[in-house]
Amino acid sequence: MIDVIKPTLLLNKQKCLDNLERINTIAKKNNIKFRPHFKTHQSLEVGRWFKKFGIKSITVSSVSMAKYFSEEWDDILIAFPLNVLELDNIKVLQNKVCLSILIDSYESIDILDKKLSNKINVYLKIDVGYKRAGIRYDKIESIKKITNLLDSSDKINFKGFLSHFGNTYNSNSKDEIREVFYDSINKLEKLNNIFPDLDISIGDTPSCSIIEEYPDFISEIRPGNLIYYDLAQYKIGSCRLDDIALRVVCPIVSIYEDRSCMLIYCGSVHLSKDYILENEKKCYGYVYQGDHWSLDNKIGKIVSLSQEHGIVNLEKNEDLKIGQKVSIIPIHSCLTVDKMRELYCDNSKIETMN
Amino acid sequence: MIDVIKPTLLLNKQKCLDNLERINTIAKKNNIKFRPHFKTHQSLEVGRWFKKFGIKSITVSSVSMAKYFSEEWDDILIAFPLNVLELDNIKVLQNKVCLSILIDSYESIDILDKKLSNKINVYLKIDVGYKRAGIRYDKIESIKKITNLLDSSDKINFKGFLSHFGNTYNSNSKDEIREVFYDSINKLEKLNNIFPDLDISIGDTPSCSIIEEYPDFISEIRPGNLIYYDLAQYKIGSCRLDDIALRVVCPIVSIYEDRSCMLIYCGSVHLSKDYILENEKKCYGYVYQGDHWSLDNKIGKIVSLSQEHGIVNLEKNEDLKIGQKVSIIPIHSCLTVDKMRELYCDNSKIETMN
Repeated sequence: MIDVIKPTLLLNKQKCLDNLERINTIAKKNNIKFRPHFKTHQSLEVGRWFKKFGIKSITVSSVSMAKYFSEEWDDILIAFPLNVLELDNIKVLQNKVCLSILIDSYESIDILDKKLSNKINVYLKIDVGYKRAGIRYDKIESIKKITNLLDSSDKINFKGFLSHFGNTYNSNSKDEIREVFYDSINKLEKLNNIFPDLDISIGDTPSCSIIEEYPDFISEIRPGNLIYYDLAQYKIGSCRLDDIALRVVCPIVSIYEDRSCMLIYCGSVHLSKDYILENEKKCYGYVYQGDHWSLDNKIGKIVSLSQEHGIVNLEKNEDLKIGQKVSIIPIHSCLTVDKMRELYCDNSKIETMN
Repeated sequence: MIDVIKPTLLLNKQKCLDNLERINTIAKKNNIKFRPHFKTHQSLEVGRWFKKFGIKSITVSSVSMAKYFSEEWDDILIAFPLNVLELDNIKVLQNKVCLSILIDSYESIDILDKKLSNKINVYLKIDVGYKRAGIRYDKIESIKKITNLLDSSDKINFKGFLSHFGNTYNSNSKDEIREVFYDSINKLEKLNNIFPDLDISIGDTPSCSIIEEYPDFISEIRPGNLIYYDLAQYKIGSCRLDDIALRVVCPIVSIYEDRSCMLIYCGSVHLSKDYILENEKKCYGYVYQGDHWSLDNKIGKIVSLSQEHGIVNLEKNEDLKIGQKVSIIPIHSCLTVDKMRELYCDNSKIETMN
């Protein structure tokens, strides 16, 4: 066992493999490509676990991440709209791997046309309701114009449409996730009827966790978070608590019996500031005593976080002592991993790109 | 000028020096020690800027941070309650610097007694209303008992009381900050009447930014954030916008004219997820066009953040183009610095302990 004396991130490999097995089986059954998003783990070593499932193509969210994973992967999609200031780095990467990029503006096509030397795979981002990025699915005239431009460029190999149903993250149940999914799928189906030969890439963790059957026009899914899951995913219905493959283990620093609280050495620089609401109050993580992976002894939840301080409202406080260690299920695994930067799995350190 | 192609943290040294000059003058006038908190910048290089003001003693919030700064500082207070699991590291540090620690439980005194080899400076944490850590100021019998224990230990050099008026951060105006400050001071004054010979250490950024006169019984102040300030501090009345010494500079990736929004390459892995509320809506940063330090051209604010995506609601959108750079005033400089880990100042890179 590694000797935890300060906040330490532990990873359960078996849970990761089980989570991957589940989605991989669904993808195979539906004959769609599983192109996992690697922004969650940002680790070459964890990335290798995907290879035993036959995964050959991955998704990342930055040029830096594409560069990091290009050491071991040769089919990489950067699923973040093109940052034209990084074109030189993209050109270098193009010489090393099969690179796909995402655009959602006319201007970026023009810039690619002028500045690229070799042809690049391009997806067009479509907004089906999340309103984060992309061209609205129902702006058919704009989409036709832009696809014509993409088709006519000799620097672009236009692959198809890419969408992220990010509003599934605002769901409160499996039914709500399904509702967002089918609503988004219907919108994409209209596009598919007009552009039947183009690929369509989708796939957020909530819908990938509960949808078993995909329409034929979906080419690939790109979930990332589901390798680890987290409390936010549990709350919206994506997973069971027992599927969550991460724990932050940290020491109890003080116990305040008069207000049924304790102070742990674990703050926003470890967990990040993401929260869920429970009874309209912010919760920054569930706290367990004893074996890191058991769910039997929940002793409370984190109700406030500052830089290094976590305050836990205690539901039980038998046998708690300062210097003991507790395990926390984090709210948002992607941000916790990004914050902590190194993980321990089976007593070995796993590095991430940071 | 450094060539920004992705989110980059810029620091304005002159604003830092001005912010330090102001508080240093107040501390001198009041004849109290200014023991700045270094958790905000976590940088040896920025730490050196304090030396020209004659600062010799510093505050940190972890043993790791104490170790990092022990390279160049020899009077260090760890203002986070003792994590007994790190006692071995504390003992090593004791041999190198004059170390002060913080406790708020009987148990930790007992552990110090048993495990330390050399005497250590200890402060007792007092809670005057923030309810994060410490013993309540009005539990006089408990405080007497614990101070007796502290006095009688031959491993402890008991220095006095330490308090953090953290609820000043929930203020909405200078008047509210003052109200919290004087309320907290009155509580500490009662303690001072009972224990007149003990030091009293206080000092959060909001009150240190607006209080000009301190009662005689205050020995030192420990603000940290005020070297950089941020939007949260501006909103509660601690500083002017023009005092804020940090900007995240990042590229415009897409502009969505139909919904008066733009996408910037700057997400929660850069800024952190801290926010302020404006008209009951979350705001993750103010966004400016043009010169990084000018406040003349605010073009909008960040209304949502995901891992790498920032969505800006535009107030103006004349002349905006993809590939242009914008400057962001972050909400919480401590967390943004912790996230970004390196800063640029006058075109040189400044490293932090991460």
